[in-house]
Amino acid sequence: VIIDLFAEEHTADIAEIIDELSNDDATYLFRLLDSEKTAEALLDIDEDDRARILSKLSEKEIAEHIDELDTDDAADLIGSLSNERQNIVLSNIEDGDHAKDIAELLQYDEDTAGGLMAKELVKVNENWTVPNCVRKMRSQAQEVTRVHSIYVVDNKNVLKGRLSLKDLLVAPASATISEISIPKVDFVNVNDKAEEVARIMQKYDLEAIPVVDSENHLLGRITIDDIVDVIKEEAEKDYQMAAGLTDDVEADDSIIDLTKARLPWLVLGLFGGTAAASIMGGFDEALKNYPELFFFTPLIAAMAGNVGVQSSAIIVQGLAKDNLRGSLLNRMFKEISLALVNGVFLALIVFSLGLLLKYPMKVCSTISISLIIVIIIASLVGTFVPLILHKKGIDPAVATGPFITTCNDIFGIFIFFTIAKLILGF
Amino acid sequence: VIIDLFAEEHTADIAEIIDELSNDDATYLFRLLDSEKTAEALLDIDEDDRARILSKLSEKEIAEHIDELDTDDAADLIGSLSNERQNIVLSNIEDGDHAKDIAELLQYDEDTAGGLMAKELVKVNENWTVPNCVRKMRSQAQEVTRVHSIYVVDNKNVLKGRLSLKDLLVAPASATISEISIPKVDFVNVNDKAEEVARIMQKYDLEAIPVVDSENHLLGRITIDDIVDVIKEEAEKDYQMAAGLTDDVEADDSIIDLTKARLPWLVLGLFGGTAAASIMGGFDEALKNYPELFFFTPLIAAMAGNVGVQSSAIIVQGLAKDNLRGSLLNRMFKEISLALVNGVFLALIVFSLGLLLKYPMKVCSTISISLIIVIIIASLVGTFVPLILHKKGIDPAVATGPFITTCNDIFGIFIFFTIAKLILGF
Ligand SMILES: [Mg+2]
Ligand SMILES: [Mg+2]
Ligand SMILES: [Mg+2]
Ligand SMILES: [Mg+2]
Ligand SMILES: [Mg+2]
Ligand SMILES: [Mg+2]
Ligand SMILES: [Mg+2]
Ligand SMILES: [Mg+2]
Ligand SMILES: [Mg+2]
Ligand SMILES: [Mg+2]
Ligand SMILES: [Mg+2]
Ligand SMILES: [Mg+2]
Ligand SMILES: [Mg+2]
Repeated sequence: VIIDLFAEEHTADIAEIIDELSNDDATYLFRLLDSEKTAEALLDIDEDDRARILSKLSEKEIAEHIDELDTDDAADLIGSLSNERQNIVLSNIEDGDHAKDIAELLQYDEDTAGGLMAKELVKVNENWTVPNCVRKMRSQAQEVTRVHSIYVVDNKNVLKGRLSLKDLLVAPASATISEISIPKVDFVNVNDKAEEVARIMQKYDLEAIPVVDSENHLLGRITIDDIVDVIKEEAEKDYQMAAGLTDDVEADDSIIDLTKARLPWLVLGLFGGTAAASIMGGFDEALKNYPELFFFTPLIAAMAGNVGVQSSAIIVQGLAKDNLRGSLLNRMFKEISLALVNGVFLALIVFSLGLLLKYPMKVCSTISISLIIVIIIASLVGTFVPLILHKKGIDPAVATGPFITTCNDIFGIFIFFTIAKLILGF
Repeated sequence: VIIDLFAEEHTADIAEIIDELSNDDATYLFRLLDSEKTAEALLDIDEDDRARILSKLSEKEIAEHIDELDTDDAADLIGSLSNERQNIVLSNIEDGDHAKDIAELLQYDEDTAGGLMAKELVKVNENWTVPNCVRKMRSQAQEVTRVHSIYVVDNKNVLKGRLSLKDLLVAPASATISEISIPKVDFVNVNDKAEEVARIMQKYDLEAIPVVDSENHLLGRITIDDIVDVIKEEAEKDYQMAAGLTDDVEADDSIIDLTKARLPWLVLGLFGGTAAASIMGGFDEALKNYPELFFFTPLIAAMAGNVGVQSSAIIVQGLAKDNLRGSLLNRMFKEISLALVNGVFLALIVFSLGLLLKYPMKVCSTISISLIIVIIIASLVGTFVPLILHKKGIDPAVATGPFITTCNDIFGIFIFFTIAKLILGF
């Protein structure tokens, strides 16, 4: 009865049901259901649940699931096992070619084109005649769920172009493929970063793209559904980093997982705050005559933090979209102009607010002037920290959020009191 | 010569070149190139550049571009014109059916399924015979760039299922479509939110999905390339809101545009900071005996801000993924537990740091205890503000970033000094 119930369900929905079950029930369900259904569901469930279920299934049972999966998904699934289990599973896969393809995919880095591609594709030799081509294509197409494109290669498996199904159908039987193929074809290198592949496929509205090695040999193909997942994951990662979260957490994760994701950034903030406190302690001679300065430090820190995050977010997005043009000098000049415009406007407001609160004119001026300078420096920090990280090969998104905020809190407060000392001379 | 140069380019690349040109040069280029090439490029260029180029082209020239576009893209392009120009352009479109389809699409809301769908699709009547079906499909397929799926409707245009091309090809000539069609088909309602459509298409790995009205009449079809754009745009919007940016800015926008996007949140922060300053001013009797309290307010404010943003980011992502389970009470209990775990740990660190800086024991205890309470309240604010906004139909992402930070700055500082007063009794 349960089997009937599941027969009509999408695998992604089965995965959701499994996510709600205990591990024993989930494992039971996996044994009960046809591996044709469960194999894909296994990919859609939470990583930790998957690991636990895989640990309870035998290598033979896992191999039965793998038999049902496309090579890219199979490699992802096997890739999460220990090296030892990987080999046992591979040797238990019935179809030897399938096992060989999966083993090949296992060697590529997760976040490269190689880590995304599948071996399933339809390719034809440029020297084949039309009838021969149709015959060979038919057998290839059976293994491929969605054909998308037909790729044309030469005798050495070098990608030469693509073939339109329509052109093939109307071609005379005597024609060879090279005569009717389209030489213009988009492709990516197997070592290209996943984010770069995503950018290309989005830009050109592609549903599939062939993957080649450095000698242009056709190695595999990437489909858009996997790219959609890459785009989503990248966006979530950047968002979480901007919010000071690591480790890809969700609301329903355990308190321990959530703490692991949140605590590191909070500890950073704590040390930053303590540093700020000791900086302020160093200016305690101002306490007597200018207590207002201390009332305004949270404002200075907040503004420095906000400006820094704004600047770094714009740079992180520009780097991701690959649309930052112009020299560093121009960028610096622009950031300073922008910060000046914003700073002067905000300084005028805070000056008026200060007077309204009946603070001494001299204190109001100090706060206003410091604010302008703090905003300029915070926006430069926000702009150049991600640029420098990116140049060093570090993900610039790490810079946004608490890191920039904490840096700018410390800088901001130091600059504020230094300028105050210069102007007020305490 | 220029024309030859462009002949081989992707439209998205032409768009990039146009983005670099002055408006006069760009308009010149549009007149020079074949509208087959430029029509799609017109969609890919910056919104502001597009508006300026459209303002220079005549309605007849725009209509020529529209003739080349699919209905969804055509509607997007026309939709940016004034109502008056829209009508003139529509009346200049050669193909009357095309104009009618576009006019229909113009009435749907931008961020619904209706705003994303195109009228181009391949549909067959369930009562047709196989040979009749093949004949009619052939003429439809000419207008559709990528077929994806063949949809089956009844005499009243109600969506009944889909048809596999393979099944059609092997079916006996006497069969009717209803005998060989697959009744199970995913679809969305024309009024469904774009984000919901994106969620469904990602979950089930769909490359196209049919759109129906409330009586299940087949209205159009949405393809994955447009959904990829939705996902990207949504992610960028959320990211920018978390960073305190409005208005979808980029690094290369003008200083005025960047100021417009950044200043509102900074002004909010400024008022928040001034409020914090006057709260602290109200506790100025503490200045003499407990100046350390004032040194630690930036730390308290920073921690409140960071914790709040972490909590709200997790909720915003949970709402977007639609995977928040359990009651509000459970969520509150969990947030408090989590905040307690984090808070106690951080309080112990700050207590030790305080002692290290040789602050009085009583001040260190005050700071530590306040920190725990501030963290609990900040995480509750961060959790429930987005939940409440979502319930009221407001985008919860508005809550993240500067808004939560500013609220928590003020709350945090007030709580901090109130507790200090209770413990230290100044
Ligand atoms: Mg789970
Ligand atoms: Mg992989
Ligand atoms: Mg696109
Ligand atoms: Mg795949
Ligand atoms: Mg998939
Ligand atoms: Mg990234
Ligand atoms: Mg531009
Ligand atoms: Mg639209
Ligand atoms: Mg998917
Ligand atoms: Mg489209
Ligand atoms: Mg498009
Ligand atoms: Mg959203
Ligand atoms: Mg702050």
